[in-house]
Amino acid sequence: MGAVKTKRMPRAVREQQMLDAAVRIFGRRGYTAASMDEIAELAGVSKPLVYLYLNSKEDLFTACIRREAKALTGAVRSGVRPGLPADRQLWDGLRAFFAHTGEHPDAWSVLHLQARTHGATFAAEVTAMREEIVAFVTQLIVVAAREAHRNPDLPEREVAGLAEALVGAAESLAAWANATPGVTAREAAETLMNFAWAGLANLMADRPWTPPEEPEAPEAPGELGEPVAQPG
Amino acid sequence: MGAVKTKRMPRAVREQQMLDAAVRIFGRRGYTAASMDEIAELAGVSKPLVYLYLNSKEDLFTACIRREAKALTGAVRSGVRPGLPADRQLWDGLRAFFAHTGEHPDAWSVLHLQARTHGATFAAEVTAMREEIVAFVTQLIVVAAREAHRNPDLPEREVAGLAEALVGAAESLAAWANATPGVTAREAAETLMNFAWAGLANLMADRPWTPPEEPEAPEAPGELGEPVAQPG
Repeated sequence: MGAVKTKRMPRAVREQQMLDAAVRIFGRRGYTAASMDEIAELAGVSKPLVYLYLNSKEDLFTACIRREAKALTGAVRSGVRPGLPADRQLWDGLRAFFAHTGEHPDAWSVLHLQARTHGATFAAEVTAMREEIVAFVTQLIVVAAREAHRNPDLPEREVAGLAEALVGAAESLAAWANATPGVTAREAAETLMNFAWAGLANLMADRPWTPPEEPEAPEAPGELGEPVAQPG
Repeated sequence: MGAVKTKRMPRAVREQQMLDAAVRIFGRRGYTAASMDEIAELAGVSKPLVYLYLNSKEDLFTACIRREAKALTGAVRSGVRPGLPADRQLWDGLRAFFAHTGEHPDAWSVLHLQARTHGATFAAEVTAMREEIVAFVTQLIVVAAREAHRNPDLPEREVAGLAEALVGAAESLAAWANATPGVTAREAAETLMNFAWAGLANLMADRPWTPPEEPEAPEAPGELGEPVAQPG
């Protein structure tokens, strides 16, 4: 990230330096507060050169989202070996995920927070990435159910909900791990496996959690209220 | 939300109407794109009156976050009866949570997405609410571990991670349920209990998920690479 001044540096290399600087500033300051001056300075180039290469703040941000989304899905994908049992794939994928988000906290802030709230165009970029990860997890749950043999036909909507829950838990843990000194990727992944996989394994084996038997609950159970006498 | 024109309406009532309109517009358009004109029009008042009562777009947004955060934590709190077993409290709390986020999707969008990315002041408002919910879940996990007797001393950091995972899963499911026609609050809560509680129950009973035995993994398991001969 140093302010290398070589004039003949190839454009592709300069662009990557600009993106490195932009991810850092967008991730730390937020999209709105980030200034193109600061990004150019951190990249060691002039502001006009940033505009010449990346066109606008919007396009620069889009380029950041695309690069970082690709890097994150690539890291998860290359951490997983398809032939292994589903829980092993999930474990490997989670460790790769937390290792990547832990090593690139600014990129994670761009993807998880900034990209989702500054307009539909940016949000669509990150939604595509999230859907790819949800699809991967969904597939693992389906395979695991098939491997367990006992419950091969989890309803599609339940699988979709479980995958959303798992991905949401991973997102939340990534932010927590990045904000909590000393939490390793392995620790975060183990917490999530403890939390999720044991529950999923029970579900696959047809031992779901059972809602308590209950009479129709009153509307507002926390409220004190006089019973109302029914007429006649 | 109707454009009631009564001149003598009390200020407090008018303010609530302005906040109703603001939550709807902020939730649907996002903070940056939301216009004070549209908010005033939807509230059925003049724009100067909105500024007179709420001062600025920033203050109006802050008032929205505060009101909706209080409403959500209040709904969860009043759904839970403290004397019951921990899993029952969690089940009741989750149903209250999903019922509230399902009935107030714009408020959920304000809290979950908009408030977290438009500056530190807004983020701090919603962080306080999230911390309250995480603390509630943490407490339930601690109580459950005590009730289970077998594992009364889950390490503090593990409990914190589990609570973050559960809250993140709930947040993700709330967004998914709001975007998926026909998913009820009960269904979302049951999916999360299936996903999480069974896993937690195993953990309490000292049956954690066990990481696979493995040799030291190569750095990039997805890459093909020639083994490098060590110099003799």
